[in-house]
Amino acid sequence: MRFNEVLDCLHTYEAGKPIESVVAQYGIAAKDVIKLASNENPNGVAPAVKERVAQALDKMNLYPDDSMSALKNALSRHFDVAFGQLIIGSGSDQIIELAVHAKCQKGDCVLMAGITFAMYEIYSKAVQATIVRTKSAEHDLTEFLELYRAHSPAIIFLCTPNNPLGECLLAEDVRAFLREIDSQTLVIIDGAYQEYAAFKDKNRALSPKDLVAEFPNVLYLGTFSKIYGLGGMRVGYGIAHAPIIAALHKLRPPFNVTTLSLLAAEEALAQQDFVQDCLRQCACEMVRYERFCEEKGIAFIRSFANFITLKLESKDSTELAQWLLQKGLIVRNLASYHLNAIRITIGTESQNTRLLGLLEEFWSL
Amino acid sequence: MRFNEVLDCLHTYEAGKPIESVVAQYGIAAKDVIKLASNENPNGVAPAVKERVAQALDKMNLYPDDSMSALKNALSRHFDVAFGQLIIGSGSDQIIELAVHAKCQKGDCVLMAGITFAMYEIYSKAVQATIVRTKSAEHDLTEFLELYRAHSPAIIFLCTPNNPLGECLLAEDVRAFLREIDSQTLVIIDGAYQEYAAFKDKNRALSPKDLVAEFPNVLYLGTFSKIYGLGGMRVGYGIAHAPIIAALHKLRPPFNVTTLSLLAAEEALAQQDFVQDCLRQCACEMVRYERFCEEKGIAFIRSFANFITLKLESKDSTELAQWLLQKGLIVRNLASYHLNAIRITIGTESQNTRLLGLLEEFWSL
Repeated sequence: MRFNEVLDCLHTYEAGKPIESVVAQYGIAAKDVIKLASNENPNGVAPAVKERVAQALDKMNLYPDDSMSALKNALSRHFDVAFGQLIIGSGSDQIIELAVHAKCQKGDCVLMAGITFAMYEIYSKAVQATIVRTKSAEHDLTEFLELYRAHSPAIIFLCTPNNPLGECLLAEDVRAFLREIDSQTLVIIDGAYQEYAAFKDKNRALSPKDLVAEFPNVLYLGTFSKIYGLGGMRVGYGIAHAPIIAALHKLRPPFNVTTLSLLAAEEALAQQDFVQDCLRQCACEMVRYERFCEEKGIAFIRSFANFITLKLESKDSTELAQWLLQKGLIVRNLASYHLNAIRITIGTESQNTRLLGLLEEFWSL
Repeated sequence: MRFNEVLDCLHTYEAGKPIESVVAQYGIAAKDVIKLASNENPNGVAPAVKERVAQALDKMNLYPDDSMSALKNALSRHFDVAFGQLIIGSGSDQIIELAVHAKCQKGDCVLMAGITFAMYEIYSKAVQATIVRTKSAEHDLTEFLELYRAHSPAIIFLCTPNNPLGECLLAEDVRAFLREIDSQTLVIIDGAYQEYAAFKDKNRALSPKDLVAEFPNVLYLGTFSKIYGLGGMRVGYGIAHAPIIAALHKLRPPFNVTTLSLLAAEEALAQQDFVQDCLRQCACEMVRYERFCEEKGIAFIRSFANFITLKLESKDSTELAQWLLQKGLIVRNLASYHLNAIRITIGTESQNTRLLGLLEEFWSL
């Protein structure tokens, strides 16, 4: 059967290995497998979230409330933005997808950092947009500005903190950049890891409310998949000027978030003490990796997220990732980004102890 | 901000009222509100499904297994089809969306019944396809064939049993129809309610395995939202010749089904005793509505699904729906389909008793 020509240019997305398949492959007991590859919250979710979902299991047969009022009202209070400035997606991924479909057509240009979240490219290719990347792997706003002027992109993606590298822009630099961009260009600011950045350095914290008030062309994205510990539940949100949100809602598939996910996210947002505990834990544990790298002379990117990227120079990232895998430890090999680097999600204290021990061993091989 | 022109033709989807808003509007206690409007399974889910999900609440932080092997393997066994003939979506809705995006471009024609599932039109409009409908509200395959020959559609939708009307095609008529269709036309057979039809009349039961083996251009859709009682969890599936499935996978957003939804669906599929109990219960209760209509001289469509559509002639559907709403009972008014009719989901025995009592009262007003 013939399909639309766009499919000829698309590849099927292959996700990372689930724990189960590692277990199966190497005969390692499930309890001994540690996955520090997907930037999940290693502390799980707040107990109140589990309780809330447990009490709602009788509602699995009921379609989700498609108005999503409860969660939107909670987000509206949390960010001090209007109800009409919010959209909820099946992960913030889905809002990226909607935005690309709303704004881009074949041949339109989409601008992004040299190395950044893979979904920007995946969704842009699905509408046959042309992808322009900065030469710098990390975000360099001077270079972004040059490319913006040269290519007039329909969309600019800023991922701050940037996944998979971890660097994070200063809030004042973001605002100065936005002032140079015309109002027809949609700037998507992906704040999936913003809570971690805000905890570490207030100067890098973005306020969705202020951004949206000043810039009618900004779409801010947040997620419940990271600090809120709901990676498996697929809930993200977009905050923007109401006309942008209204446009995205026209393309939103009805019932795009499950009944249990809506409740889990609403409860997770209320558990800010849990969030603070997780942020503190992550910051403490991050220091252990930084010290290890400094001791061993391993280059790393100072991270404002819940992961750290090690640049390997003397070792090979594929070899290291494979060696760790056989020992039941899954990290993200960045060879697919043409980097000899690995990205490690900051785990629990004991998970990090195990991984640091293995890294120690690998470096002494 | 300017968006793609397609957005000018799209309207934002407005879903039915959730129970909560009815309660708020009329001051009715939540326990007294009955929603028989969305064809949800009134018996909820099998206890084993709740147990399985309850045991997995510690996994909410983990991204779903994007290979979905466990559920795909279970479906593969259940339908005796190959792993590569299966795709899983966030509801079968999402598979409709993927198929439309894979196959249709602006100006392509999509053929469907006069009155059928609203999502076919919603997703077709999103790619600016031209929608052609039969004059008959219910499926008339002779008319479908004429329109197929006149318009060469890219996609033909058959919804059998048909939502929101309830009629169901004979399997042999479907096969005879398919033999007339060229192999480049994608025929999407939406079997969301097939389990109910198969229980009531074996001659209307479709075998996805046989369909796919004989017709390389058929995409069969099934769902966990109806008989399996997982409307809130958003899991549907598509079964087709492997090349169709491979094409759809290119457009599938990664992690499109939640971690808990995958487990719930896998367990629900294993609970066939629960399915049989629900089918029996639904068939018994359906008879009560049919008898009521016959006694009152109310026209209805003989239904092969879990709902019944009453054609109101002497009464006004909007008036009736509003009258029921004030008493805490939600049914589906089909006025938006330009029909003076209501669609009632078959509820539990006590829910049906309550609704039948109210209908009795309304007819004696």
